[in-house]
Amino acid sequence: MKTAQVDVAIIGAGTAGIAAYRAAKAAGASVAIIEGGDYGTTCARVGCMPSKLLIAAAEAAHAVGKAAGFGVHFDGLVRIDGRAVMDRVRTERDRFVSFALREVQDIPEAGRIRGHASFVDNHTLQVADHTRVTATSVVIATGSRAAYPDSFKALGDRLIISDDVFDWTDLPKAVAVIGPGIVGLELGQALHRLGVHVAVLGRGGRVGPISDPEIRTYALAAFNEEFTLEPDAHIAHMRRHGDRVAIGRTAPDGSQAIEYFDFILAATGRTPNVTGMGLARTTLKLDAKGVPWFDPTTTRTASADGASPIFIAGDAGNFIPLLHEAADEGRIAGGNAASLALGKQVQPGLRRAPIGVVFTDPQIGIVGGGFHTMKPGTFATGEVSFEDQGRARILLRNKGLMHLYADRANGRFLGAEMLAPGAEHLAHLLAWALQAGMTVAQMRRMPFYHPVIEEGLRTALRDLDLNLRAAQTNASKAA
Amino acid sequence: MKTAQVDVAIIGAGTAGIAAYRAAKAAGASVAIIEGGDYGTTCARVGCMPSKLLIAAAEAAHAVGKAAGFGVHFDGLVRIDGRAVMDRVRTERDRFVSFALREVQDIPEAGRIRGHASFVDNHTLQVADHTRVTATSVVIATGSRAAYPDSFKALGDRLIISDDVFDWTDLPKAVAVIGPGIVGLELGQALHRLGVHVAVLGRGGRVGPISDPEIRTYALAAFNEEFTLEPDAHIAHMRRHGDRVAIGRTAPDGSQAIEYFDFILAATGRTPNVTGMGLARTTLKLDAKGVPWFDPTTTRTASADGASPIFIAGDAGNFIPLLHEAADEGRIAGGNAASLALGKQVQPGLRRAPIGVVFTDPQIGIVGGGFHTMKPGTFATGEVSFEDQGRARILLRNKGLMHLYADRANGRFLGAEMLAPGAEHLAHLLAWALQAGMTVAQMRRMPFYHPVIEEGLRTALRDLDLNLRAAQTNASKAA
Repeated sequence: MKTAQVDVAIIGAGTAGIAAYRAAKAAGASVAIIEGGDYGTTCARVGCMPSKLLIAAAEAAHAVGKAAGFGVHFDGLVRIDGRAVMDRVRTERDRFVSFALREVQDIPEAGRIRGHASFVDNHTLQVADHTRVTATSVVIATGSRAAYPDSFKALGDRLIISDDVFDWTDLPKAVAVIGPGIVGLELGQALHRLGVHVAVLGRGGRVGPISDPEIRTYALAAFNEEFTLEPDAHIAHMRRHGDRVAIGRTAPDGSQAIEYFDFILAATGRTPNVTGMGLARTTLKLDAKGVPWFDPTTTRTASADGASPIFIAGDAGNFIPLLHEAADEGRIAGGNAASLALGKQVQPGLRRAPIGVVFTDPQIGIVGGGFHTMKPGTFATGEVSFEDQGRARILLRNKGLMHLYADRANGRFLGAEMLAPGAEHLAHLLAWALQAGMTVAQMRRMPFYHPVIEEGLRTALRDLDLNLRAAQTNASKAA
Repeated sequence: MKTAQVDVAIIGAGTAGIAAYRAAKAAGASVAIIEGGDYGTTCARVGCMPSKLLIAAAEAAHAVGKAAGFGVHFDGLVRIDGRAVMDRVRTERDRFVSFALREVQDIPEAGRIRGHASFVDNHTLQVADHTRVTATSVVIATGSRAAYPDSFKALGDRLIISDDVFDWTDLPKAVAVIGPGIVGLELGQALHRLGVHVAVLGRGGRVGPISDPEIRTYALAAFNEEFTLEPDAHIAHMRRHGDRVAIGRTAPDGSQAIEYFDFILAATGRTPNVTGMGLARTTLKLDAKGVPWFDPTTTRTASADGASPIFIAGDAGNFIPLLHEAADEGRIAGGNAASLALGKQVQPGLRRAPIGVVFTDPQIGIVGGGFHTMKPGTFATGEVSFEDQGRARILLRNKGLMHLYADRANGRFLGAEMLAPGAEHLAHLLAWALQAGMTVAQMRRMPFYHPVIEEGLRTALRDLDLNLRAAQTNASKAA
């Protein structure tokens, strides 16, 4: 048995773990980083990057289909070469993974330990059967994995998760996507546009991360113009039928039908990788799912009897499972873990204005906490439809609806929900304005070029300003 | 002869004139708006809108050509239906013009006067031969027109300006674009992508509005990968040859050749419409080109002997010939013209952070005054190449170079020049940050989603921050 004694031990060498390693090293701590699985990040291997590659191919196919609307024709049929599509996805994915691996390789060999880590106590980790690590502080950065109900397992090899899609060497004929969350919507629409027969089915009615009912209704209708999206599907049964899966369900019009798919893609969410690592042998407070409670500003967990030497970052903490948030959390966790080990103060780190993007078409954008975090009676809403927006119409991308929210008391911008062309860009402009603490009046004074999608945002700001004034007038009448 | 007596007379019912009308009315003035040409704005009729429509068709054709890179194929050849392309351009253009006309129609008939206006003196206008208007203050909002050297006229009907392009019912085979400014680059590249043989030729070496030598060099090479762009061409002769035009020139490699084109598109700039309106009968100070001097913050002109009752807005003032600037100037001019007439104070109006976009591919973006307005030794530069930028590569749009500038003394962001995918969006984010007075450190704390083009901006900000620190270290060493 080898032993190691360090200031900071980091469990997991993904996005959060690497960021934590760098921050702890920069703070002057001795650090060991422990990885039990393959090197490479969730984002590069099975997350943001390969999904965007698949979507890029889908958008290319869609653009070819739309060209006639501009007067651009071709003879013959569009032929989607599934092997070529998946070959580019995998090749470029491997390239992005190689960058992630390079970041690991930049860490000196001596600082890296391979093997599954398990807590012996708050300060001691057993790595596989070969090394015992003693650390003044620990960062848990073990990431997450796709999760689905146990009952799905009866489908055997016809059940896949998003990870599997990116290892395909060709496209299948028909896929049912269970779960219209971010992953389900992105992959569902992309596969549909690549000629795969797709149905995206869910329970409970949610459409991606949208919480504003009007935006949800609009998005549901918009997606259904293109492919089957039933966020509250009535599935009677889902069972293996030879090499396929049969789904029996009652359609929204009441009709009952059985449909056959090559695969069921479980896009039913992710679960933090915190089981099987001996958290019960620490003194940490755990939530109902066994995830350590932690303070998002410092990433520090807590013991029942007070402070804790353990920090948590990235998907493992189940806070905001996004790459840029994982990197921020890793930085905060690594810095604070080093501070604690070196006798310095644990401090709140930089958290940025929340921004979320779903790379569907139109894209979904969420800025701030979203509609469901707004307190009724305290905010005003501004709206724009992109159906007649000049630039969107020029590009034949005139579909979308955006809501902006602002504080009635002081006119401060609070956030937005949207289905919009180029929502990834609009969301940045809005998230920056939110973080800068801008009021709607200040935002209206900002420059808007012509003709651009951003002019739609200006229209919504004008509407929001009017509604803020109306709310203030009503308030002063009532007073 | 009819007579009219108003507080404010506005000459020109385009973007600036309509904005001036509304502002003057909102301020409580009596207003007459005089138009000598067709109603409708330069932007809608022959500017931003039809050019973006042509570019959208060009991008559709280009996207079809690029689809194979994603694994999307089709049998047969791409066939660009020039009649269908131009039909959509004209139909949608007419729709945008109809919105502009509606804005004119919203003005009561009594407030509108048709006919060419000419100054009798500072307060008196003669409209055609039918009306004499006396006004306490006047707004000149007469717009601009395409300008070219007299020698071009020998080409007869083979010489066209951008206005003519948007009335085409089909696409020609070959066009030489003279002038690689904004219009020349946009139309040149679009026509090339629509299958027209194009050469864009200039004198003096400028490439669009770029003033940063490295960005210019990069852009020149990037465009030349796709079509002939010689910003400092050596044209020996340009003459009519039957139904075509022959251009003899010495190529950059020293070879001499004669090339034939269906049309010469003069994109050699625009000139303010200020001649033939009797400005000599006013007391205004005029510049060498006969354009009244004015204060851009108030839009007020000046007499040799002091203040003037005349304001100028939009392209007529030759300040920043962009739609959103024209609208701002019109608002300021109309408001101040009314103030002057009603005995109130003339005041500086809202001017926004400068933003410029050229809708080529990649797009050109300029934020702030541009590189040529930076004082050597006072600023630092940050750079990013988009050739390896993740999101750009996913989209097969990984071409571009961006420079950001910041003040060495205080780290404040000063502006940017770029050739970049999605520059229209990056430019908004940067122009908002500039207007908000952000420092580079503040901008680095803003959220960046993953994977997005905006992450390229983050890379440039990191580089800029390093260069600012290096400059400060050097400065403190020297001190």
